Amino acid sequence: MHWYFVAALLTILTSSQGILTTLSQSNGKYLYDYATVPFLAEVFKLLLSSLFLWRECRVSPITRVTTEWKSVRLYVIPSIIYLIHNNVQFATLTYVDTSTYQIMGNLKIVTTAILFRLFLRRRLSNLQWMAIVLLTVGTTTSQVKGCGEASCDSMFAAPIQGYMLGVLSACLSALAGVYTEFLMKKNNDSLYWQNVQLYTFGSIFNMARLVLDDYRSGYENGFWWQRLFNGYSITTWMVVLNLGSTGLLVSWLMKYADNIVKVYSTSLAMLLTMVLSVNLFNLKPTLQLFLGIIICMMSLHMYFAPPNMLVDLPAQARAAPESLKEVTVERRTGS
Amino acid sequence: MHWYFVAALLTILTSSQGILTTLSQSNGKYLYDYATVPFLAEVFKLLLSSLFLWRECRVSPITRVTTEWKSVRLYVIPSIIYLIHNNVQFATLTYVDTSTYQIMGNLKIVTTAILFRLFLRRRLSNLQWMAIVLLTVGTTTSQVKGCGEASCDSMFAAPIQGYMLGVLSACLSALAGVYTEFLMKKNNDSLYWQNVQLYTFGSIFNMARLVLDDYRSGYENGFWWQRLFNGYSITTWMVVLNLGSTGLLVSWLMKYADNIVKVYSTSLAMLLTMVLSVNLFNLKPTLQLFLGIIICMMSLHMYFAPPNMLVDLPAQARAAPESLKEVTVERRTGS
Repeated sequence: MHWYFVAALLTILTSSQGILTTLSQSNGKYLYDYATVPFLAEVFKLLLSSLFLWRECRVSPITRVTTEWKSVRLYVIPSIIYLIHNNVQFATLTYVDTSTYQIMGNLKIVTTAILFRLFLRRRLSNLQWMAIVLLTVGTTTSQVKGCGEASCDSMFAAPIQGYMLGVLSACLSALAGVYTEFLMKKNNDSLYWQNVQLYTFGSIFNMARLVLDDYRSGYENGFWWQRLFNGYSITTWMVVLNLGSTGLLVSWLMKYADNIVKVYSTSLAMLLTMVLSVNLFNLKPTLQLFLGIIICMMSLHMYFAPPNMLVDLPAQARAAPESLKEVTVERRTGS
Repeated sequence: MHWYFVAALLTILTSSQGILTTLSQSNGKYLYDYATVPFLAEVFKLLLSSLFLWRECRVSPITRVTTEWKSVRLYVIPSIIYLIHNNVQFATLTYVDTSTYQIMGNLKIVTTAILFRLFLRRRLSNLQWMAIVLLTVGTTTSQVKGCGEASCDSMFAAPIQGYMLGVLSACLSALAGVYTEFLMKKNNDSLYWQNVQLYTFGSIFNMARLVLDDYRSGYENGFWWQRLFNGYSITTWMVVLNLGSTGLLVSWLMKYADNIVKVYSTSLAMLLTMVLSVNLFNLKPTLQLFLGIIICMMSLHMYFAPPNMLVDLPAQARAAPESLKEVTVERRTGS
């Protein structure tokens, strides 16, 4: 399976996630407890990965499975990072409004690339760094509030703590991604076994959250397992399955591709969601959405196209003499 | 003199043009006849170029000057194109509002690059084409109307003729630039002699416009030469001198650099004007201006940086095997 096929599938599923979640609401409200969705998605991923692992073990007896506690315990860390991230996210939203929060969220593209360079020691060319910045700028452009939209006085006007928490949030999100990539690639263990470990901890942490919610509400709505499927419709189940599937695709990409591929997938998914929303919910297309799409497409091409294709230059009158000479040498000896 | 020094000077002078023009108004109105400004600027350029030509002829007897009518008559064409362009511009504005017109004006970046390729047969790399598109997108982004600004229903809502005329206008503007570059580079004539020819026709055409204005208004305000300096302040004279100087710098760039350099200069000048306006006229800085500036800076770097600097890539795990091999070969034999 090629990584770009998986990445494209991830883009489509991620963008339908937003649409499905909107469709699962009734008059703008959830009829079900939204916190149950990620829990069930974790359980779905755990069951599916266990099934695949069992099949893999039966077919090939050489399936690699490291079961030492020293290795297993590392898989709890992404869950811990996400737990901290959720709380930082909650704190950020007490300082800034949701649209400022959404715009700051684009920072995670840049922080992911930085941690990818620092922790995984993966080098990027100058052009690739520029592509990363352009991707951030492109997604942000598409989110610029247009004229006629609700008030926007809050932009640039939130307390400094809000922005600092936003940056922290972007760093934590990047850290979770980069750490997961490190885990998935650190040995040749079966992907399914790695998934089983990740999702076991994921299920436990999500369950703990439901228990905590129950405790905080003073068991007003009973225990979480009593209301687990309350208000669930077909669409809600699709949201669960969709969230679970995107999680599995992300795991695959972390092992066989990398964080940058994932960042491109999810950024393009965001744009696709906006385009689909314009069509489905009869919104007006904005100039900034159109511009954002062009910028992100350029960024995609800059990042992934083979460099020779991009700079197969004719000798240039404007270039400095030294660089001109180098280009000529390359053209003679290279492709 | 290096072309980037001239280009930087052009950027500064072009951006002060907008500021000076605003400052030369009283309560948002011109106290002078604005049509006299380009006429006087042409005369200023003609006088200065004649002076320089005279000095050059005295110093070096080998100054190249082609005086055949067959060559001289070609210099009338830019004036004719600008005349048509002004009328198309006027017609466009009867269909679309000024801010839509301003946004469509960014199209001339792309049309200039296309005509540059077609008529002057100058090749651009893939990356340079992407840089051109990004420059267009960047300047457009900075002009996106923010929330809280006046109504914007007119965007995408003008009659189709408006957009077609906008495209035609962008093509004419590009044609004038590309044709002028062709003229300036077609032989080794002295730059000053070429300027004298250009600005003689320029002065004549601008004078004709003043005569026509007089005729149209039924000589209500008397003859144009009677009101030539009416209402002129120091600032108005600075507008004239500034417009004349930018014209001379553009001529220089057309001969010793090219249209793309000019396009970058004037696009960056537009952004600089917006930044200066925020400071001088106490406007609110917008997110889209900030994004536009980043995009244009990336574009500038992509277009002008030596290609080796951009793609000095480490061997990449993601690249296809063929391209990987090529990169390795290049790294071994190249720089």
